[in-house]
Amino acid sequence: MANLLSRRTFTIEWGHCDPAGIVFNARFFEFFDAGTWSLFEAALGVKPRDLAATFGILGLPLVDAGARFIAPARFGDVVELTSQVSEFRRSSFDVDHRLFVRGALAVEGHETRVWAARDPADAAKIRSQPIPPEVTARFVTD
Amino acid sequence: MANLLSRRTFTIEWGHCDPAGIVFNARFFEFFDAGTWSLFEAALGVKPRDLAATFGILGLPLVDAGARFIAPARFGDVVELTSQVSEFRRSSFDVDHRLFVRGALAVEGHETRVWAARDPADAAKIRSQPIPPEVTARFVTD
Amino acid sequence: MANLLSRRTFTIEWGHCDPAGIVFNARFFEFFDAGTWSLFEAALGVKPRDLAATFGILGLPLVDAGARFIAPARFGDVVELTSQVSEFRRSSFDVDHRLFVRGALAVEGHETRVWAARDPADAAKIRSQPIPPEVTARFVTD
Amino acid sequence: MANLLSRRTFTIEWGHCDPAGIVFNARFFEFFDAGTWSLFEAALGVKPRDLAATFGILGLPLVDAGARFIAPARFGDVVELTSQVSEFRRSSFDVDHRLFVRGALAVEGHETRVWAARDPADAAKIRSQPIPPEVTARFVTD
Repeated sequence: MANLLSRRTFTIEWGHCDPAGIVFNARFFEFFDAGTWSLFEAALGVKPRDLAATFGILGLPLVDAGARFIAPARFGDVVELTSQVSEFRRSSFDVDHRLFVRGALAVEGHETRVWAARDPADAAKIRSQPIPPEVTARFVTD
Repeated sequence: MANLLSRRTFTIEWGHCDPAGIVFNARFFEFFDAGTWSLFEAALGVKPRDLAATFGILGLPLVDAGARFIAPARFGDVVELTSQVSEFRRSSFDVDHRLFVRGALAVEGHETRVWAARDPADAAKIRSQPIPPEVTARFVTD
Repeated sequence: MANLLSRRTFTIEWGHCDPAGIVFNARFFEFFDAGTWSLFEAALGVKPRDLAATFGILGLPLVDAGARFIAPARFGDVVELTSQVSEFRRSSFDVDHRLFVRGALAVEGHETRVWAARDPADAAKIRSQPIPPEVTARFVTD
Repeated sequence: MANLLSRRTFTIEWGHCDPAGIVFNARFFEFFDAGTWSLFEAALGVKPRDLAATFGILGLPLVDAGARFIAPARFGDVVELTSQVSEFRRSSFDVDHRLFVRGALAVEGHETRVWAARDPADAAKIRSQPIPPEVTARFVTD
């Protein structure tokens, strides 16, 4: 039993790269963000922009992110990004991202996000909320 | 009589540059956007994020932008960006941007923006609105 | 007889969008840049990163770019970008870009680029070069 | 005895922010990158773009980066970023970044970078090199 893994294949663009000719580090965090949205769309069958309204939340704010850069990705490289929830907790979860260049692992990333809604006691505040079991169930694969 | 000209001096960052070692073109449009906000803050004395509420508008949506790239800007270059409204019309206006590297004009840009509010007849719609004369007056210098 | 038109379909990401919930204008210029590279790859059958070496040039530096923003693109929108050379001149050319959201034209853009190589008389200088006829011929469709 | 701490104050721009109205996470990694370059300039008295040539290296490639997002930063916020080497090892080092909004810690980041040069035995390869003691000495403050 494992959590759903989503895959995105895309091509590194000129504008992703820095004067060293390799992807500028901040871009990988853009890729990870897009990977998480894709994963949630694949698991829940809900368009990312409808996610908040569908589940009565404000969004999935990021509280932690990180990456290990193992090998560079260059302009024109066709890369594969895999994204997978590694752990669901009561009101937060971790997503693992792996970016492969020609089949070799180039970057490992992780995000920690919160299932967040308005505080019922004070609409100006945002509070983490328990992740509904029907949500986490949709990520489980056999 | 001329319109107020705002100046911002900043340093070109590594992340602004592409594999040719020069600023990636899209970044100049970020610089122009920031230049327009700075100009409006300087003219109106209102923090950019308070602009919409202060004047009962939704914002200053961009309808046209362009740039002429004359000379490259490189990592570490200290650049000066000047921004100035070249023309106010009834409900739209043009902003000219000029970016200088070591005193020489490197990029010329322009933006056309609209003074936009919700349509009183249909709040789901956005409509251009006449720019209040007390706004345009604040841009005039002697 | 017309020039080759390349099409790219992609999805607007969260990170492309600004606090108004729509694509931040600078991002469209990233899209145009990627569109031009795709177009040249489609026409010439050469990977973008091999283009310079294959044709003995330094690249295709941008000298002018612009866009007209007709309708917004939002997070999750599946957009189509078409890119086509509208005119080849002796050593420069124009590319037209059109971005469609749900079939409707949302942004029109253009770029002017130069076919550029090192100056044979001074390797520190970059000079425009005549575009080889075998290059322009590859863009012509029936 | 502590390592030199550099401070940069800047304003959050519209283009840094996402549809939630807060700085998009990838932008913080741009800020950290700029913070590291500023820190090295302050410590070594060498312009960032001259760093590699001055010390006979290729650069300071990033091998690890991460951030903890404690509070949001919004359009127009004046933020302070502090950057400081927390540890120099033989050929790599860690940089701690802290971003403050109105004096309160909003984001904590870290980077691990390598002092990297061409492999003398194979110029196509990049190898970590011992960081010269005259470099690390420049970071020590009383």
